[in-house]
Amino acid sequence: MEMGCDEKVGVMKRGFLWMKSLVEKLVEIGSKTKALGKDDPRRVIHALKLGFTLTIVSLFYYYKPLYDNFGVSAMWAVMTVVVVFEFSVGATLGKGLNRAVATLLAGGLGVGTHHLAALSGHVGQPIITSIFVFLIACTLTFMRFFPSIKAKYDYGMMISILTFSMVSISGLQDDEVFLLLEKRVSTIFLGVCVCVVISISVFPFWAGEDLHNRIALNIENLALFFEGYGSEYFKTSQDREANKDEKLIQAYKSVLKSSGIEDTLYNFARWEPGHGCFQFRHPWKQYLKIGALTHQCAFRIDALHRNLSSSNFQVSQEIRREIQESCMEMSIESGKALRQLVSSIREMTQPTQAEIHTHNSKAAAKKLKASLRSSRLWEHCDPLTLIPAATIGSLLIDVVDCTEKIAEAVQELASLAHFNSAKPGVVSLEKSEAVIQIEKEKVQPNIGISFVTIPISTG
Amino acid sequence: MEMGCDEKVGVMKRGFLWMKSLVEKLVEIGSKTKALGKDDPRRVIHALKLGFTLTIVSLFYYYKPLYDNFGVSAMWAVMTVVVVFEFSVGATLGKGLNRAVATLLAGGLGVGTHHLAALSGHVGQPIITSIFVFLIACTLTFMRFFPSIKAKYDYGMMISILTFSMVSISGLQDDEVFLLLEKRVSTIFLGVCVCVVISISVFPFWAGEDLHNRIALNIENLALFFEGYGSEYFKTSQDREANKDEKLIQAYKSVLKSSGIEDTLYNFARWEPGHGCFQFRHPWKQYLKIGALTHQCAFRIDALHRNLSSSNFQVSQEIRREIQESCMEMSIESGKALRQLVSSIREMTQPTQAEIHTHNSKAAAKKLKASLRSSRLWEHCDPLTLIPAATIGSLLIDVVDCTEKIAEAVQELASLAHFNSAKPGVVSLEKSEAVIQIEKEKVQPNIGISFVTIPISTG
Repeated sequence: MEMGCDEKVGVMKRGFLWMKSLVEKLVEIGSKTKALGKDDPRRVIHALKLGFTLTIVSLFYYYKPLYDNFGVSAMWAVMTVVVVFEFSVGATLGKGLNRAVATLLAGGLGVGTHHLAALSGHVGQPIITSIFVFLIACTLTFMRFFPSIKAKYDYGMMISILTFSMVSISGLQDDEVFLLLEKRVSTIFLGVCVCVVISISVFPFWAGEDLHNRIALNIENLALFFEGYGSEYFKTSQDREANKDEKLIQAYKSVLKSSGIEDTLYNFARWEPGHGCFQFRHPWKQYLKIGALTHQCAFRIDALHRNLSSSNFQVSQEIRREIQESCMEMSIESGKALRQLVSSIREMTQPTQAEIHTHNSKAAAKKLKASLRSSRLWEHCDPLTLIPAATIGSLLIDVVDCTEKIAEAVQELASLAHFNSAKPGVVSLEKSEAVIQIEKEKVQPNIGISFVTIPISTG
Repeated sequence: MEMGCDEKVGVMKRGFLWMKSLVEKLVEIGSKTKALGKDDPRRVIHALKLGFTLTIVSLFYYYKPLYDNFGVSAMWAVMTVVVVFEFSVGATLGKGLNRAVATLLAGGLGVGTHHLAALSGHVGQPIITSIFVFLIACTLTFMRFFPSIKAKYDYGMMISILTFSMVSISGLQDDEVFLLLEKRVSTIFLGVCVCVVISISVFPFWAGEDLHNRIALNIENLALFFEGYGSEYFKTSQDREANKDEKLIQAYKSVLKSSGIEDTLYNFARWEPGHGCFQFRHPWKQYLKIGALTHQCAFRIDALHRNLSSSNFQVSQEIRREIQESCMEMSIESGKALRQLVSSIREMTQPTQAEIHTHNSKAAAKKLKASLRSSRLWEHCDPLTLIPAATIGSLLIDVVDCTEKIAEAVQELASLAHFNSAKPGVVSLEKSEAVIQIEKEKVQPNIGISFVTIPISTG
């Protein structure tokens, strides 16, 4: 049956449409790929590194002399590379060490089991082997549920079960178990070594460095909010740039999203040797503490933001004037304190300046409380319009309180990790003046609003 | 040299102390193990299941006839069990399918590459193979960074690289690549099948069911807070039972902690076939939405709690009396609404009752606002003591707003998953009455406080 002219045109049309949608799909995938690579070019480098390592290890298979030495077992080296080679040095090291040590230990146990089972003759051997495999598999599987083991040795546990059952079961058909184990262990060691060496020597990506930068970035995002917040919210609605407002929200929301990543990075960083500015026993755990505080702070900012953007925030001009100054001072000083912490983390110096700013911001908080209490305000204004202002004030004080905790945690990090002291100069002069003020306050905790007079020129 | 008597005693003492600390350590591990098993007995069952499956699969190796068929490749089946057998059915299915399909596809590609490379003679073959391995490894490694691929096919991508390089590299020394692939594919299929069958038939643990229960539990924990909150906070400080207070905090804090787990369970649940009350395409994604809302609500409760427990909350008896009723009503009604949602999720019925309670709680919120605005209060009280009360009121309204969103999301789930309608009877009669009220309000949105008169007898 031949197709009519119309049918032919129809088929061609459909074919053309199909091709067009295919091309569109391909273009979309292409642009997504490009964006993914552009977003973090290390992804491209990692892919190239893995391809390179795999090609090197496959050399064992290509050339007769090497192949004669390892035989089919050379395949274990190839497998090891694919399984062990991870993005960061810490992850690669952790998985590699887990794999190598687990193979060695469980393999030894497997050989022992094989010899034990062989004593009981041809009928008893499979039964004894089965019982051992069952018991070891059950025990190790259950052990994987322990949180401390899960965090660091989960992969090692799995490889232990694998190697143990492989070696002891192999013994049933092949008496050269020891040779099998030896080949497996040596090829896996080789694979792990190549992975670790290339991971460390060719464009190394350190999980610890990532964690360090991420924490600094999170604090910077919070600082961004504080810096923009005052000027944005004390404009009238018409003045506000929706664009800038959106940016501020994005800044603190990005902190909220990054929650689980820090735990993962911490687990990897613990495996890493000293590198760059970080020594072997760098206090990585402190980063988790700072991270948790930044999340808490971001959530409080979220509460504040919701209250500010809700229609409740219809504050009269008079109240606005009254609280504007101290609110802005609080947020600007908190922003400055956080900025100082960021640069202190980035340059790994002591955050001496941050204390002054948190102090100023606390002083401004006191001033805000006092303004809200001033009888002048309560006599002249409609009390109802004061409620939202009071709520916002109280939330802002809550947030500022949290930035103070972050500052303390960073201070603790600086002393744990022996950060350098800040450069001497004008800064330290100003500092000493402010520190005296702070000392004074420690003696007289209820000295009140007078502190607002500290000159704010340390930014 | 012989030891003196004192030295002998010293050595024995040290030995004894060492033994003692070892026994103590063992007892500690034992009690931890017991606690872990008691906390979730499914862990023990999972360990036994894995041991059982591994023993079954190792039968391929034990008996000559089966061994003659598969040979050394039977080891792949053992490996597959160890790697694929996961806690939940969904995780096992996901990993199993990934492994089987990836082995088949990448293996086919590997055989193709082997034949292509073989065309270029003995010198060209390793070069061509290397280039292909490098390119495929780089491409697939980079693809693993795509979030959509990472969530569902990460393991498949790794197995693809593994199988492809294994098959194509093996071709260099052994021309029976096809046979190798056939054995690998068949043993892996076999391993995956055994895993999936045992995972589903012997005490199956469904990730979907877990997700369902966890969401219900989270909402219940929030409900617990609301139910206890009013009675706890409106007591004077001396009355409070520290114990009960601690329980309330634990309840909502446990919601905050469970954040990442739901995403993991969702990724597994997507692989699961229909089971129990859940059909194949159960709207699992909606659970994530509800989960996110419960976290948000828990964070708002945290803000509320911090304000309540801080020293700011020194409200005079008069204000306390004034706001107590509406605050308690809000929290009790919100608690009831959440309870209804919990039982609606657990029994998979329509949450018809919840709407009434959220409505009542909204009405109480209006009443609270009105109380705070009442001129009587402002004339008689010191305005300063009103600020904390106003803040708490505004935060409570914020929280109640969030419970309403949870109710909407559960409603949506109920209609997406076709939950049964609730049993008819007295309940539905009361409902219709309240629904009429709600309808009325939709027509006259600013009707005000009059709604507080709805009889609250639907609990």
